[in-house]
Amino acid sequence: MDVDALLARARDGDRSALARLLSVVERGGEPAREVGRLAHQASGGAHTIGMTGPPGAGKSTLTSALVRTIRADGHRVAVLAVDPSSPFTGGAILGDRVRMGDHALDDDVFIRSMASRGHLGGLSLAAPEAVRVLDAAGFAFVVVETVGVGQVEVEVAGETDTTVVVVNPGWGDAVQANKAGLLEVADVFCVNKADRPGAAEARRDLEQMLDMTAGRDWRPPVVDTVATDGTGVDELWAAIRSHQDDAATSGRLEQERAERVKVEVRRILARRLLEAAEARAEGDGFDALCAGIVAGELDPWEAVDQLLAE
Amino acid sequence: MDVDALLARARDGDRSALARLLSVVERGGEPAREVGRLAHQASGGAHTIGMTGPPGAGKSTLTSALVRTIRADGHRVAVLAVDPSSPFTGGAILGDRVRMGDHALDDDVFIRSMASRGHLGGLSLAAPEAVRVLDAAGFAFVVVETVGVGQVEVEVAGETDTTVVVVNPGWGDAVQANKAGLLEVADVFCVNKADRPGAAEARRDLEQMLDMTAGRDWRPPVVDTVATDGTGVDELWAAIRSHQDDAATSGRLEQERAERVKVEVRRILARRLLEAAEARAEGDGFDALCAGIVAGELDPWEAVDQLLAE
Repeated sequence: MDVDALLARARDGDRSALARLLSVVERGGEPAREVGRLAHQASGGAHTIGMTGPPGAGKSTLTSALVRTIRADGHRVAVLAVDPSSPFTGGAILGDRVRMGDHALDDDVFIRSMASRGHLGGLSLAAPEAVRVLDAAGFAFVVVETVGVGQVEVEVAGETDTTVVVVNPGWGDAVQANKAGLLEVADVFCVNKADRPGAAEARRDLEQMLDMTAGRDWRPPVVDTVATDGTGVDELWAAIRSHQDDAATSGRLEQERAERVKVEVRRILARRLLEAAEARAEGDGFDALCAGIVAGELDPWEAVDQLLAE
Repeated sequence: MDVDALLARARDGDRSALARLLSVVERGGEPAREVGRLAHQASGGAHTIGMTGPPGAGKSTLTSALVRTIRADGHRVAVLAVDPSSPFTGGAILGDRVRMGDHALDDDVFIRSMASRGHLGGLSLAAPEAVRVLDAAGFAFVVVETVGVGQVEVEVAGETDTTVVVVNPGWGDAVQANKAGLLEVADVFCVNKADRPGAAEARRDLEQMLDMTAGRDWRPPVVDTVATDGTGVDELWAAIRSHQDDAATSGRLEQERAERVKVEVRRILARRLLEAAEARAEGDGFDALCAGIVAGELDPWEAVDQLLAE
């Protein structure tokens, strides 16, 4: 496989070349390394946008509407939809075809679902690699949409240049958002389904919570949207652009990207060591140790001591 | 610190001894190992119950109502409320005192919040240790309640003997539950806030989804509740007990506990290796490597190769 050629074709708009590169990244291993290396060299031009929020908040519909606005503004845009999916079924339920919807005929929009597959650290490692490939393929904007507000999902969505947190009226209150760590990652808040009762309260809750988090350089704006009819999506786009400008001119963008690199290196280091360890966590010796734990002869930490001593 | 004596006092109902043991576990390190070792020997008597579901589903209120029912049934019960909280604020927002509510005066109820603190693998390691301490302290039932439906949270709630998945009418549909991996971990489904419109639909969606997952030994019952007034909580408790009986008599309980031990040993092994590696990911050499990545001279995986080669 000539990764260099595939990447060049992807830059020229060849969708099947791009899809192939992303599949390589998802599968991992040595070929993924080569893709990652070349994509890294060619990346850095895209502005990345995270979309996160509770399941059912309407993130997919909002992302689709946002893509329309970004296109109308003249930019190429890619979407990486990260789906926690089931560790058992091992795949995204909503296929890329369903998601493509009204963008199916637009060559300057590329939408891809990525399953987390339940691997420890899998999602947090694979997502930045996939984003880098989309970046290297020349998309001006890469939207990363995650389902759910768990620790890993919020992390992945938060590791973008501009993170949009999507909530709904009556979803709960700002305390819930704070509990899920959403306040910390939000650069823009979006109250979607704002035509429902309680939108003003949701907005007020968020603004009050923001009042309490003093000392931040950037105060996340709160934007109302109704994704299903496009209301407020232009304002959401303007808020994202405004954050993008502010982050770039203040130097925060550069700083945050450098910090993210460190986080990623630590994560890869941990992953490599885990792989090296997996061989020890197999076979008769391992099973015997675990049986000993069940029998109460030793505890899990003592078992690991024995594995490491071998 | 005499861990043995503390554990004996905790078994006798000394709440401050128990609280101290849990704090030791949360802080980690060598003292936590000693607590874990002794707690492991004394554990295995408790039946553990996981409560998970999207933020705002009413899990805390439901847990509180369930605790009342378990008490009325004559059992001692402990609750571990796992809160993803913010990696920045580093603590649970809702304090244990707020959660205690109507159980504040009952010596046979113990409620404890645990923050995940955003550590990689932290929550999945600390939660089973804390559960073991509560088990060793002689509680017949230990309820583990997690906020949010992220990968880690679902994992932690799923690693209990009986996992209850709490949803709401109109929260979304069974597809959402499946996407979050909730169908796979559920032993009992609970449609809470069942007095709201859409409860019958939510239940029907879940039943249809369950119809499609053939070949399971146990079909999760779907129970309607209104946690705020206690409606259906007795039925929820009966469903939990029924699953408990079935798991014990079929041998699945023993099997699943043995499997969980293996998962935990693998996790601890990975953690220990990570700690050994953290030392490498610090200092001038590490910073220089990361600066090289930002400059495009090498990619994150190559940087890790260099760290591992040293």
